[in-house]
Amino acid sequence: MNTAVDIKSYMQTLGQRAREASRVVAKAGTEAKNRALTAIADSLDASRAALLEANARDVQNGRSQGLDAALLDRLEINGSRIDGMIEGLHQVAALADPVGEITDLKYRPSGIQVGKMRVPLGVVGIIYESRPNVTLDAASLCLKSGNACILRGGSEALYSNQALAACIGAGLREAGLPEAAVQVVDNTDRAAVGELIAMPEYVDVIVPRGGKSLIERISRDARVPVIKHLDGNCHVYIDDAADLAKAFAIAMNAKTHRYGVCNAMETLLVAEAVAPQILPGLAAALTEKGVELRGCEKTAALIPCKAATEDDWYEEYLAPVLAIRVVDGLDGAIRHINQYSSAHTEAIVTENYSRARRFLTEVDSSSVMINASTRFADGFEYGLGAEIGISTDKIHARGPVGLDGLTSQKWVVFGDGQVRN
Amino acid sequence: MNTAVDIKSYMQTLGQRAREASRVVAKAGTEAKNRALTAIADSLDASRAALLEANARDVQNGRSQGLDAALLDRLEINGSRIDGMIEGLHQVAALADPVGEITDLKYRPSGIQVGKMRVPLGVVGIIYESRPNVTLDAASLCLKSGNACILRGGSEALYSNQALAACIGAGLREAGLPEAAVQVVDNTDRAAVGELIAMPEYVDVIVPRGGKSLIERISRDARVPVIKHLDGNCHVYIDDAADLAKAFAIAMNAKTHRYGVCNAMETLLVAEAVAPQILPGLAAALTEKGVELRGCEKTAALIPCKAATEDDWYEEYLAPVLAIRVVDGLDGAIRHINQYSSAHTEAIVTENYSRARRFLTEVDSSSVMINASTRFADGFEYGLGAEIGISTDKIHARGPVGLDGLTSQKWVVFGDGQVRN
Repeated sequence: MNTAVDIKSYMQTLGQRAREASRVVAKAGTEAKNRALTAIADSLDASRAALLEANARDVQNGRSQGLDAALLDRLEINGSRIDGMIEGLHQVAALADPVGEITDLKYRPSGIQVGKMRVPLGVVGIIYESRPNVTLDAASLCLKSGNACILRGGSEALYSNQALAACIGAGLREAGLPEAAVQVVDNTDRAAVGELIAMPEYVDVIVPRGGKSLIERISRDARVPVIKHLDGNCHVYIDDAADLAKAFAIAMNAKTHRYGVCNAMETLLVAEAVAPQILPGLAAALTEKGVELRGCEKTAALIPCKAATEDDWYEEYLAPVLAIRVVDGLDGAIRHINQYSSAHTEAIVTENYSRARRFLTEVDSSSVMINASTRFADGFEYGLGAEIGISTDKIHARGPVGLDGLTSQKWVVFGDGQVRN
Repeated sequence: MNTAVDIKSYMQTLGQRAREASRVVAKAGTEAKNRALTAIADSLDASRAALLEANARDVQNGRSQGLDAALLDRLEINGSRIDGMIEGLHQVAALADPVGEITDLKYRPSGIQVGKMRVPLGVVGIIYESRPNVTLDAASLCLKSGNACILRGGSEALYSNQALAACIGAGLREAGLPEAAVQVVDNTDRAAVGELIAMPEYVDVIVPRGGKSLIERISRDARVPVIKHLDGNCHVYIDDAADLAKAFAIAMNAKTHRYGVCNAMETLLVAEAVAPQILPGLAAALTEKGVELRGCEKTAALIPCKAATEDDWYEEYLAPVLAIRVVDGLDGAIRHINQYSSAHTEAIVTENYSRARRFLTEVDSSSVMINASTRFADGFEYGLGAEIGISTDKIHARGPVGLDGLTSQKWVVFGDGQVRN
């Protein structure tokens, strides 16, 4: 069924069903949504054997297609990963329901009372790569926020995602919610993605999760709004008024806590005045952890490192590599960040009030931190309970996107018969 | 200079300048922005003769090109319209500055304190039709919210907009802000619009103001997010538990207060149980005002009217025409609205608590009202101070868009050296 016409008609059918289901889940009560989440968790627990079997087929296919070890690891489902999915569902069930919340209700001189009510977006299309747990994260967050969703996972995880979809469907049925509230695309043709992002009549927003090239392609071709997460080229700036013990701890944590994550530091900026004091010790500790250092000329005069090129300032290594640049001070740091950063997360380490304030105001990134590790840029750490992604956009949602990011606000007006003069 | 290459290079230059200027206005203080707004007002006041002369050229050209009377009226600048622009600038200067506002600052178990800071979007592109006062509205709202803007008005208002741009430039200069913070596109070729909506590197969001076909075309072709206002097919539903005196006043106001506005009622829905009581008197009053009535069969059995067709339910008349449908009650009303409405503004008239609550929750429009006229759906009436448009989108901004709609929020984290475990 992989002719272009068939794929179009298949996706249109998914879209229509999602639109209808979205009207039902939008007005579903908190209790019904939580019941569905719990029932999905129960269904996962009862389906462990089937899930492992389906996943084994994917892993075997992946191995025979030569997927590398990292991808195979991300693809794998095991007992503790099923436990994690179940735990995640219970966590989302425990979150406050954002739908229907009315805020900012104020009387106006005309006598009407005006406020805003939080409402679901409608239908969310999510396009992601190998990790099957994203299927559960996405489904649970969309459901709790009253949205229907269409999930397009990686073709390498097809059987796993179908098995997970069966559990989700069972949970929705048990709670009396439409199964079409969560649909998994089981057509692995790339054209299915092309259709999904070009049905504004059925899909309200696309959330792509994956590599930069996937996201750039989707942003370019989409006919609906995209909440996108491009790269995380994050910076820590050690000011000359920094507490050097804090600076050391933050730089080490931001670089070495985990390497392959979007909120890891990729470039360290150091004020010229303190570079001789902080860099040698820091470089030794980083090198001991196996981090490769690439420095500017001034850095190279202080510590052993490779020479950084212009490209290094733009790079998101996602690896034990760190670019280091000595800057004249705050102005140089801000200039560097606003030129090279991907506007994800930046931190300053300083005890100087005015410079902290300027950094906070003038750095234009989705998270800006004072005296804290960039690794905190995360939905759980920020108290969102969970996240569907981290937006590097400014429109609609910026930074970690939780339940609120999957909703909109409509205006509500309470009157007593008022008319306009 | 109207080859495609020249237009592209012209627009790219505007874009580059806007991006640079946006960095300056983003961090400009409230006082400097207000000073610029006041200086622009003073410059308009001092330039009345030049403005009237430039506008006279546009009006004369328009007349010789056969523009109709309504368009010529919208195009015209006169003394009282200049007064209105000046007053508008002072009003925007008096609004609170949204930039830098920090909200929701909370401590997390890790010890970091997390909140959100309101920040400008960057560069806003605004595409509009004949009314020259939009030039001032858009420039003042973008400036106050810390954004640079590129304004593309209608070709019929070119000289007027250039004269207004000169006043804006003088005001910006006087306040020490970059003139490129507000740029008026003086290339009237349609290709300039095509370039403006396809420069994601220089333009962060497009706000089109104009007819439905313009907005649909822009939404289809844009490579950047669009805050769009399509049509306003607004409904009033008179429930069988309505206070009929309120119902009469609201229906009359929603339809006849002004005809050519997006928040005017276009279809009236009446519960079957009260239709015989309310419709005859209402129909007589509407007919006396010169409103043409188009009713469903049940309506036609109660009052003199033309027969409404399926097309009438979709129509935004923007004229003294009203479609009327008798529905079985709340369910029928919600079903009709969610099928035919453009999701702009809908009102219920009822004294019944549970039905009011259901209408509020289940009607999916940008404004939902109880016992108030749809004519209140407006930035001034809602207390936004001013509006750049009314969004019928769900993403980013919904309903009247004021200063907040022209901003985003970044996450701010205050720490004391915290690292992640």
